[in-house]
Amino acid sequence: MLIVQKFGGTSVGDLQRIQNVANRVSESKKAGHDIVVVVSAMSGETNKLIGYAEHFAKNPAQPEMDMLLSAGERVTASLLSIALQEMGHEATAMTGRKAGIVTDHHHTKARIENIDPTTMNEALQDGKIVVVAGFQGVNEEGDVTTLGRGGSDLSAVAIAGALKADLCEIYTDVSGIYTTDPRIEPKARKLDKISYDEMLELASLGAKVLQNRSVEMAKKLNVNLVTRTSFSNEEGTLITKEENIMEAPLVSGIALDRNQARISLMGVKDRPGIASDIFTKLAQAEVNVDMIIQNKAHDGATNIDFTVPVSDLFDAKKVVDEFVSIGEIKADSYNEDICKVSVVGVGMRSHTGVAAKAFSTMAVNNININMIATSEIKISMVIDEKYAEIAVRGLHDAYELDK
Amino acid sequence: MLIVQKFGGTSVGDLQRIQNVANRVSESKKAGHDIVVVVSAMSGETNKLIGYAEHFAKNPAQPEMDMLLSAGERVTASLLSIALQEMGHEATAMTGRKAGIVTDHHHTKARIENIDPTTMNEALQDGKIVVVAGFQGVNEEGDVTTLGRGGSDLSAVAIAGALKADLCEIYTDVSGIYTTDPRIEPKARKLDKISYDEMLELASLGAKVLQNRSVEMAKKLNVNLVTRTSFSNEEGTLITKEENIMEAPLVSGIALDRNQARISLMGVKDRPGIASDIFTKLAQAEVNVDMIIQNKAHDGATNIDFTVPVSDLFDAKKVVDEFVSIGEIKADSYNEDICKVSVVGVGMRSHTGVAAKAFSTMAVNNININMIATSEIKISMVIDEKYAEIAVRGLHDAYELDK
Repeated sequence: MLIVQKFGGTSVGDLQRIQNVANRVSESKKAGHDIVVVVSAMSGETNKLIGYAEHFAKNPAQPEMDMLLSAGERVTASLLSIALQEMGHEATAMTGRKAGIVTDHHHTKARIENIDPTTMNEALQDGKIVVVAGFQGVNEEGDVTTLGRGGSDLSAVAIAGALKADLCEIYTDVSGIYTTDPRIEPKARKLDKISYDEMLELASLGAKVLQNRSVEMAKKLNVNLVTRTSFSNEEGTLITKEENIMEAPLVSGIALDRNQARISLMGVKDRPGIASDIFTKLAQAEVNVDMIIQNKAHDGATNIDFTVPVSDLFDAKKVVDEFVSIGEIKADSYNEDICKVSVVGVGMRSHTGVAAKAFSTMAVNNININMIATSEIKISMVIDEKYAEIAVRGLHDAYELDK
Repeated sequence: MLIVQKFGGTSVGDLQRIQNVANRVSESKKAGHDIVVVVSAMSGETNKLIGYAEHFAKNPAQPEMDMLLSAGERVTASLLSIALQEMGHEATAMTGRKAGIVTDHHHTKARIENIDPTTMNEALQDGKIVVVAGFQGVNEEGDVTTLGRGGSDLSAVAIAGALKADLCEIYTDVSGIYTTDPRIEPKARKLDKISYDEMLELASLGAKVLQNRSVEMAKKLNVNLVTRTSFSNEEGTLITKEENIMEAPLVSGIALDRNQARISLMGVKDRPGIASDIFTKLAQAEVNVDMIIQNKAHDGATNIDFTVPVSDLFDAKKVVDEFVSIGEIKADSYNEDICKVSVVGVGMRSHTGVAAKAFSTMAVNNININMIATSEIKISMVIDEKYAEIAVRGLHDAYELDK
């Protein structure tokens, strides 16, 4: 098999850990696989460099930041290659440039546009372990760019796609994707497999493990992703296309998002296009609106409720206040003490009763559902935040996710 | 004027010092000059990275070392460019690659083959301060190379040559070139100007300031070099071609080299080619032979004396022992308690009596001269090490170098 293995900052956090990574890579190579390793900077290193830059300027120039920040991954890649060579392996360290990673011009947040895998393929054909500095590429002018948060994961997935690797293993300090947050429900179970779409919907479970940007790219490039821990030999979770999961469970996991706020608009003026006006203005202010409910009250006035991330609340209020000031909205209220509980599973496409069970679980636990939104593979409910844990445990139990 | 300014590791040793460098560069720019800055890694950084590599392997692979070590200069160059931008200057940081520095394939000790100054020139024409990561280039395959010890100085000199800069200023923690080591002779005086050839002969004085490799390149490219300190506004020493020094002093300086050992071969067999055999074998063993004296003793036996750096003594002994074992040399002896005192000055080309004064100074001080070697601009004498200071002070006085 051709395997791309990506090790994050914690996994290469010091020299001993880099040696541990070398041992693990060595085992995979000895097992007969072709290996490309993608590494992050040693943990703390990137923040240290950012701190240096911010000592000089609040908003340092982005091309300079890319030249600065790309140094950390070069160090780790060189050291890992040296460690592997010392263990008797043929290994070669490559910068993003040498690995053929070409990005757009968006310094510090570049998108990978293309990978020319020629150099990597030649090294692999020579039997070498290829060690690539993650997080970086070059734009068409040949200037170094970096890929932003989660960038090394993106490097790994894109390389796996370009090389048509059999597997892309993302090593972190978390052992895989769980049916729900084990800190809330100790009976949470690690999933063996999960589909790309479910993973995207379970973002709040997986965010610490894998950013949606990487999952989306894996889906697009049809890369079999595995998240697993670098601190033990425990098997991880395979994220793959739905067809590869033989018996998809009805429900795969329960996600909890505490980072939501509810905005209620009362007495919205009854004129055509008013809702469109409000949400267009919100979009222009870059407010991420999630769920929306509109209803007519008994007195004929229209009420609109919607949710936004807490971090967008301030900007959202500014937009709403404008409509209030010109009298198009009578009153507004805000509630940060809410959360969103979601039931996710591709199985619910073909099975009925999944939603009913979710609602009845809330009822049994005396939890009032404020808002509901559904997609093909997800049911989301907004509830008071104080019921978050009870709701998660109740749903985990109801769908027998511990089995 | 177009000025290349190079700042070594101590000058950029921490964030405050980088800011000081930015202030100094800013002043030069405001004075109306075009500026290219070449920087080393922050002091200690390169050694830290070497330490990391040696944690994994005694002899880490050189391409990996180049990728590793080139990271340090990228960091400094980025930070300095950010600092200059924050001060309101247009600045741009460049890697060795972007600055157009192409080297041979000799990883970790590459030689600069060519510099394409197009990108630097474009930036200068846009009024930008160009900040280049020293010590690094790329080979023809585009792989990063580093230039070995003193590499950032070489980068600066080569860039100054390629850009036809008016001046190449090398900033260190030493304020310039002195007539002799001020720790031995407190009356030592800083030289305003010195020729390339004198500087090369005074290597032992200047070694801490400037390696011969850089001076040779400056001579070849006709670059006006200035060494000065980054810690004050004190003027430094200009190293330039002889024609630029109007009234060359008879003697420019007194150099002392304690790092010499004398090897005496007694009763060398009287056959044609024996000396050639011995010194060929020494050369093959990479022993640097400096001075050689051959003489016939009264009994007709040939004696050969020569000096080598102390660090080459062990290898030299091995070679000599072989000749002793086959009876071609009767006896050998070694003396590490010697030193070499040199009087250097282009003026002695056209003036007589310089050597005589050196010898009489030794005589006045009751110092026995073991060996003598002369070149057009240098007289070297090997004496017992215990007389080193007396000899240096005596010569400094005799040639009135404090005036």
